[in-house]
This record gives sequence, structure tokens and C-alpha cells, in this order.
Amino acid sequence: MTDLPGIVVTGGSGRMGQMLINAVQASEACKLVGVLERTGHDWVGQDVGVAMGGVALGVTVSDDPVETFAKAQAIIDFTAPAATIGFAELAAQAHAVHVIGTTGLTDEDIKKLDAAAHHAVIVRAGNMSLGVNLLVQLTKKVAAALDEDFDIEVIEAHHHHKVDAPSGTALMLGEAAAEGRGVSLSDVSDSGRDGITGARTRGDIGFSAIRGGDIVGEHDVLFAAAGERIKLTHIATDRAIFARGALKAAIWGQDKKPGSYDMLDVLGLSEG
Amino acid sequence: MTDLPGIVVTGGSGRMGQMLINAVQASEACKLVGVLERTGHDWVGQDVGVAMGGVALGVTVSDDPVETFAKAQAIIDFTAPAATIGFAELAAQAHAVHVIGTTGLTDEDIKKLDAAAHHAVIVRAGNMSLGVNLLVQLTKKVAAALDEDFDIEVIEAHHHHKVDAPSGTALMLGEAAAEGRGVSLSDVSDSGRDGITGARTRGDIGFSAIRGGDIVGEHDVLFAAAGERIKLTHIATDRAIFARGALKAAIWGQDKKPGSYDMLDVLGLSEG
Amino acid sequence: MTDLPGIVVTGGSGRMGQMLINAVQASEACKLVGVLERTGHDWVGQDVGVAMGGVALGVTVSDDPVETFAKAQAIIDFTAPAATIGFAELAAQAHAVHVIGTTGLTDEDIKKLDAAAHHAVIVRAGNMSLGVNLLVQLTKKVAAALDEDFDIEVIEAHHHHKVDAPSGTALMLGEAAAEGRGVSLSDVSDSGRDGITGARTRGDIGFSAIRGGDIVGEHDVLFAAAGERIKLTHIATDRAIFARGALKAAIWGQDKKPGSYDMLDVLGLSEG
Amino acid sequence: MTDLPGIVVTGGSGRMGQMLINAVQASEACKLVGVLERTGHDWVGQDVGVAMGGVALGVTVSDDPVETFAKAQAIIDFTAPAATIGFAELAAQAHAVHVIGTTGLTDEDIKKLDAAAHHAVIVRAGNMSLGVNLLVQLTKKVAAALDEDFDIEVIEAHHHHKVDAPSGTALMLGEAAAEGRGVSLSDVSDSGRDGITGARTRGDIGFSAIRGGDIVGEHDVLFAAAGERIKLTHIATDRAIFARGALKAAIWGQDKKPGSYDMLDVLGLSEG
Repeated sequence: MTDLPGIVVTGGSGRMGQMLINAVQASEACKLVGVLERTGHDWVGQDVGVAMGGVALGVTVSDDPVETFAKAQAIIDFTAPAATIGFAELAAQAHAVHVIGTTGLTDEDIKKLDAAAHHAVIVRAGNMSLGVNLLVQLTKKVAAALDEDFDIEVIEAHHHHKVDAPSGTALMLGEAAAEGRGVSLSDVSDSGRDGITGARTRGDIGFSAIRGGDIVGEHDVLFAAAGERIKLTHIATDRAIFARGALKAAIWGQDKKPGSYDMLDVLGLSEG
Repeated sequence: MTDLPGIVVTGGSGRMGQMLINAVQASEACKLVGVLERTGHDWVGQDVGVAMGGVALGVTVSDDPVETFAKAQAIIDFTAPAATIGFAELAAQAHAVHVIGTTGLTDEDIKKLDAAAHHAVIVRAGNMSLGVNLLVQLTKKVAAALDEDFDIEVIEAHHHHKVDAPSGTALMLGEAAAEGRGVSLSDVSDSGRDGITGARTRGDIGFSAIRGGDIVGEHDVLFAAAGERIKLTHIATDRAIFARGALKAAIWGQDKKPGSYDMLDVLGLSEG
Repeated sequence: MTDLPGIVVTGGSGRMGQMLINAVQASEACKLVGVLERTGHDWVGQDVGVAMGGVALGVTVSDDPVETFAKAQAIIDFTAPAATIGFAELAAQAHAVHVIGTTGLTDEDIKKLDAAAHHAVIVRAGNMSLGVNLLVQLTKKVAAALDEDFDIEVIEAHHHHKVDAPSGTALMLGEAAAEGRGVSLSDVSDSGRDGITGARTRGDIGFSAIRGGDIVGEHDVLFAAAGERIKLTHIATDRAIFARGALKAAIWGQDKKPGSYDMLDVLGLSEG
Repeated sequence: MTDLPGIVVTGGSGRMGQMLINAVQASEACKLVGVLERTGHDWVGQDVGVAMGGVALGVTVSDDPVETFAKAQAIIDFTAPAATIGFAELAAQAHAVHVIGTTGLTDEDIKKLDAAAHHAVIVRAGNMSLGVNLLVQLTKKVAAALDEDFDIEVIEAHHHHKVDAPSGTALMLGEAAAEGRGVSLSDVSDSGRDGITGARTRGDIGFSAIRGGDIVGEHDVLFAAAGERIKLTHIATDRAIFARGALKAAIWGQDKKPGSYDMLDVLGLSEG
């Protein structure tokens, strides 16, 4: 057991943080060595299992990243951009893999992470699910194989609390389709059809957003031509898949040389 | 054979007219006795089978509705509002059932048709497909049975030539859902989601429009709650279903008393 | 709060029992007044919240149904046939609504329950989900409205642990379709197509069973004709819906006269 | 126009033959130069357009393959194994591409075709649709990328006249999945689930066959794990796609060196 990679989870009290802690506990391929929260949070100093309302896990929540990261082989981090930029530097110093699921990163932020990746293994993805990342890759491939006789539509469904449309993952899929076709998504995107729209423009990539109930996340990429259609679908039914993807990335990164990676690398689906 | 109801098709040279003529020819429950076109149309005076590029059918295309309707037990009419209003009067005089698939009728037009229905059987529907009409009725029933914990979404897909969104049939389904719930669709309609929309408003009825290839017409009505979903789907793969629905209406109407009917009456699905 | 109907959950330590306890705790329309387990079970005598690994709920698990039912307005019972038959008598004596989700009841068992229902309100269903019960009713209605030009197929998908096919719910849907059509399911059932099957027999009701992952339960009833299809779908994503259905039944039953009811009665969907 | 590749269609009077003739006529990338039927068929000697019930096309149906193939750059052949073997030799002599959609070929037949391919371009596929061939390739790729935590199920739907299950295309997809996973389909195939099946065996590839109405052909390949699913879908709505695929193959083959090709080569999807 002592040889299993030790994981630190940042932002441990959040919904995603707790899901990550549970996933590490459930895994036989890694172990929990630390949980980080911001200074002043009432979990700091408590055993994380007790803080989560269950039995003690023997790991005390800390607000000191330097000390905590020193024990870790990987940091799993779904927090906020400013925190993530800081953690990247510290993770590099600790020679720990930094798995980043943080969203809302600016181009400037990403430049800083790329700089940190000169000395560290960083795996970053907007969606850590294995299935979605595979779908992104298939979408690019199919879009490249088919011509514009095939109209591309991305359809996504999410729970009724979601505040934006289309989803970030739908946009990722649209970008992949555009890339496969050699066009820029901003030139061909057609989202929010309503009213007298006129006929569909050849080459457009359409988006539809369905909202209802507690749907975790469903994405279709439709390629529709005369007489036939191909549809690539991902259905997420449990947010734990995002945590499992992050764990897989943490373990995969253990023997890699410094650099900036994504989930396609982790899945072995990266081309070239 | 002589006892089969005789059908007249108006606007016989159009795409829907020709589909209706073929459907009557293929049916064993009725026979073609006349085809009408506007004065000056080059089909007038020709055998309709020859005009359609095939073998003669023994029916000459006419531009005289009075003479033509006199031979008919039913008129099937997918033309334009002005023509349809005129035909309603003449069909009543001929004691023929008037099956109307004409779209774009105003409230004023409908009043005139209702007046004609005092002396004649009129069957009118925006979509003559048996399946869609059944779906409309199911949608109303399900919307009435479920409370607002179930978010309602109407999703439709059509070919890339379609110029409006959502489809007329999607709106029919939305109206049925609103009626089942006892609300006005205009108060709760949410169509064309795009950008920062905020969370879904409880009680809303959402619409999404997918466009691609040569999709004839597909409609889903989704009722999504926490932990479960019901989805009612209609898939049309051949426009001939609209012609077959019209024929069914023509035959059904033969022994009915004067009045204004719709496809729910024809299907035996009308309530109360 | 004291006026809320008091609920007893039988078989409280099982997966469904714990789900029911959690659902009662989460509800604002009823309260937990008792939990029953069999004599000798190690939960007996413990606070049920502590037994479930959480905080105390102030309800001690008992093995005495008479004493426990005396406090209850409703008994929710997903146990085994022998236990359920015994509970029915005791629930009647306690003037408590008996909600039965127990499966595997024989015709003989059901006769005994019907006898108990002369003096008590019994609500019994093979699937307590509101959505599935609604789907059963829709299926019967649609099957009655459409003729045999529409081929009926029931398609279900469940997790890879499921040991039987088709699912009990799929058979319920098939029975409803057969009843709507006025035939016996055993005469028209076509399950497990494989090899040289010959063309589909008109009037048959087909079944397909998909198994994979952790799919909670998905059912389609397809009506496929030339040129069009209707599909009625239920998707369960959380087993809590079965618990919520049981609670709804328990509350609904409070002011009903003795008799044997099912979920269609609870939903107000029963005909005639 | 004279530079367009000239196409000969064999078995021109059959349903697929006529569809091929219409597809060639509709194409701007090739032209019809000959139609072959067996000696004694009443089309022989007639203009093919007239024989099909329409206007003359200036091409007389022949029963002499040598003379007919001499005019052709490509032969499109959806006939029967014995005829196809004979045509392969003659097509090679005429330096014409031989596109073969004939089914039921034995291993012995295929050896003969491979021999002919030393001197000629032969393109052969069990399903000429671009979409299905792409799906086969995606299926293999996804099956290779995912481990056995993902249960694979192939679900197909066809019209009610189909006499076998699963469909040949479903088996092609199953073979591709098995190949991707490095197993033999015959070892893991699970088709026709019915009754007490026991839990799903890890690693199995399941098949379900839905039959109804006039469904042209729909195929899903489902990869279902805990918490997520990927589904690859092909929907055929018009048999003309098979004809268009054959034309694409005929044109693609014009500048290729002798050899045996399939639709993955035509699509540029072949690996290595």
C-alpha cells in the first residue's frame, strides 16, 4: 500500500472536492494523503472523514499547500483560476503531477500554467470524463471524413439549474467538428434558432440546448445528410465519472516527463 | 367498386396534390373521381395520370369545381386559404365531406369555415398524420397528470430547407402541453436558448429546433423531473402519411352529421 | 408537524428500506414514526439513523409489528410475500394504509391481500414510479387507438447485474399493449429474436433487452408503421423515484375508503 | 461530358439495379454507358428508360457483358455470387473498376475475386453506405480505447419483412468491436436474451433486434460503464445511400492501381 501514489485534493469541502475524496478512498490504485481548504474554513484542522459527516479517515484538512503538497505524488484541483495558478508553482516544486479541472481560465492563466509545465507534469481538461474526451476526438475525425453534405448539429441536455447555453462541453465538441472540417467555429456557429431563420446555411454547425430535471449531461453530435445520419452520443449519469477521470490522469502522469497534457493523452487517443 | 366513396383532389399538380392522387389510387377504400386545378394551368383538360408522367387513369383534370364536386363524396384540399374558403361553400352544396389540410388560415377564415360546417362535414387539421395527432392528445393528458416538478421540453428536427423554428407541429404540441397544465403557452414559452440564460424557470415549456439533411419531421415532448423522465416521440419518415391521414378523414366523414371536426375526432381520441 | 401522516418502513435495513427512510425524512408531507426489522437483526433496538451510519433520528428499530403499526397512518412495505401477507392483516387492524412494493406475489397471495382490502386501504404496484405507471396507461390507450398496421415493440435497458429478460416493467407494458388491442400477450409475445426468424408476424408484440453498465431502467414502447412511428419512453435515473412513489401512495391513501388500489388510482389516471 | 467515367450497371431490372441506374443518371460525376441483364430477360433489347416506365435514356439493355464492359470505366454489380465471379474476370480484361455489393460470397468466391484483383481494381463491401462504413471504423477504435468496464451492445432496427437477426451490418459492427478489443466475436457474442439469463458476462458483446414498420435500417453501438455511456448511431432513411456509395467507389477507383479495396479505402479511413 505504501507504494500507491499519494493524492492531495484541493478545495476539499466543495461538491466536487468531496466527490474526489470519495473516489480516492474507493480506489485501489492511489491513496489520500492530504486535503486542502482555504485559511479560515471551518474544516481546517478537522479529520476530513468527520468533516464530511462520516468516520475518521486519518487525514487532517490543512490550509498550508507547501506542507501538504510535500507528501503528494499528485494534486487534484477543481478550484478557481487564481488558486490554481498558485498551486501550479507549488506542485512543480513538490514534483507532483498537477491535475486541473478548474474552469474559467483565461489565455493569460493558461500561459502561466504552460510555463509551470516546463518543470512539471500538468494534465488539464474542461471535462475529465473519459467518454466525453473520446467523443471530442471522434467528432473531429468524423467531421474530417465527411464533407458538407453532412450537416453538423450539437445537441445537449442538462439539469434545470444550468445557467448557460450551449454547455462548455457542447462548445468543445463544436470546436472539434470545426477543426476537423478546417473552419473556425465562430464563422459557422448557429445557436438558439427561433422564428423565421431562413434555410440552414451549408457548412454551419448548429447548437441546441435542452434543460430539464436533474439531467447530469447528455451530448449528441449529429451528422445528417440526405438518406443517412451518424450520431455520436455521450450520456453522463453520475458526476463521479469526472472524479474517476481525474484519478486516472493523476496515476497516468506519474512516470511522464514535464509538459502540458490533456485527457486525450491520458486516454492514448492523441494523434501525432 | 362503385360503392366506394369518390374523392376529388384539389390543387392536383402540387407536390401534396400528386401525393394525394397516388394515395387515393393505392387505396382500396375509395376511388378518384376528379382532380381540380386553377383555370389556365396546363394540366387542365389532360388525363391526370398522363399529366403526372405515367399511364392514363381515366380522370381528366378540370378547372370547374361545381361540376367536379358534383361527382364526389369527399374533397381533399391542401391549397391556399382563399381557394379553400370558396371550396367549402361548394362542397357543402355538393353534400361532400371537405377535408382541409390548408395552412395559414386566419381566424376570419376559420369563422367562414365554421359557418359552412353548419351544413357540411368539415375535417380540418394542421398536421394530418395520425401519429402526430395522437401525440398531441397524449401530450395534453400527460401534462395534466404531472405537476411542474416535470419540466416540459419540445424538441423537433427537420430538413435543412425549413425556414422557421420551432415547427408548427412543435407549437401544436406546446399548446397541448400548456392546455393540459392550464396555462397559456405565450406566458411560458422558452425558445432559442443561447448565452447566459439563467436557470430554467419552473413551469416553462422549452423548444429546441434541430436542422439537418432531409429529416422529414421528428418531435419529442420531454417531461423531465428529478430521477425520471417521460418522452413522447413521433417520427415521420414519409410525407405519404399526411395523404393517408387525409384519406382516412374523408372516409370517416361519410356518415357523420354536419359539423367541424379534427383528426382527434377521426381517430376517436376526442374527449367529452 | 404533528398532523403529518406517520409512516412505518418495514425491512428498514435493506437497500430499498434505507431509500424509503431517507425519502420520508426528506419529505415535508409525512414523518417517520417507526422502522421494522425481523427479530434477531442487529439493527433492532438501535436508533435507525445511527444504524444507517449517520446522526440519530429518534426512531428505534423494532421487531414488533403490532406495537409499531399502532403509531402509523401508513406502512410502506417492500419485503417478501410471506411477510407482506402477515403485515396486511396487522395494517388493517391498525387502520393504516398498506403500501406494497413487494414482488413475487402469487395469485394466492393476491387473493389474501384482496381479502384484507375489505377492511383496509391497500395500494400495490410492481413499479411505484409515477412515470412508469403513466407510461403503462398511455401504452394501453395508444395500442387501443392504433390498428395492427403499427407494429408494437417494447425495448428495455438495465444494468449488467440484472438476471432476467425482459424486465417485469417491460412485461407490464406488453400486457398493457395487449389489453389495449384486446389480445392476450401470451399469444403475441415475441422475445429474444435470434437467427433465421422469418418475417415479423403481424400483431406480434416484440421485446428486446439491452444490458450494460449501471443503467437504472429505461423502457421504450415503439409503434412502427409505414412512414411513421410513435415511441413512448420512460427513463429512470435514480431509484429514489420508487420511494417517492410509495410516499405519494401513502399520503394519497389517507382519506380513501377500504379497497385495493394501484398507482393509476394514486395518479388519478384510472379509467372508469 | 465525354470525359466522365462511363458506368455499366449489372442486373439492371432489380430493385437495387434500378436504384443504381437512377443514381448514375442523377450524378454529374459519371454517366450511364450500359445496362446488363441475363439472356432471355424481357428488358434485353429495350431502352432502359422505357423499360423502367419512363422516358428513353439512349442506353439499350444488353445480355452481352464483353461488348458492354468494353465501353465502361466501371461496373457496378449487386447481383449473385456466380455472376459476380464471372464479371470480375471480364471487368479486369476491360480495365474497368469492379464495384461489388453482391452478398453471400463464400471464402472460395472471395479467393477468386482476390485473384482477379491482381490485374484490376475491385472495391467490395457488404454495406456501401458511407455512414455505416465510418461507424464500423469508429466502433473498432472506441472498442480498442475502452476497457471491459464498458459493456458493448449492438442494437439494430429494421422493417418487419426482415427474416434474420441480428442484421449483417450489426454483425459487421460486432466484429469490429471484437477486433478492437482483441477477442473473437464468436467467443463473446450474446444474442437473443430471453428468460432467466443470469447477470451479463463481463466482456460480452450483446445484440438486440427490433422489427417494425418500414424502418430502412438503424444501428446503435452502445458502450455502457458505471456513470457514463457512449453511443455510436447510424440511421439509414433511404436505400439510395447504398447506390451513392457504389458510385463514389466507382469514381474513386478510376486512378487506383490494381488491388482489392473496401469502402474504408474509398472513404480514406483505412488504417496503416
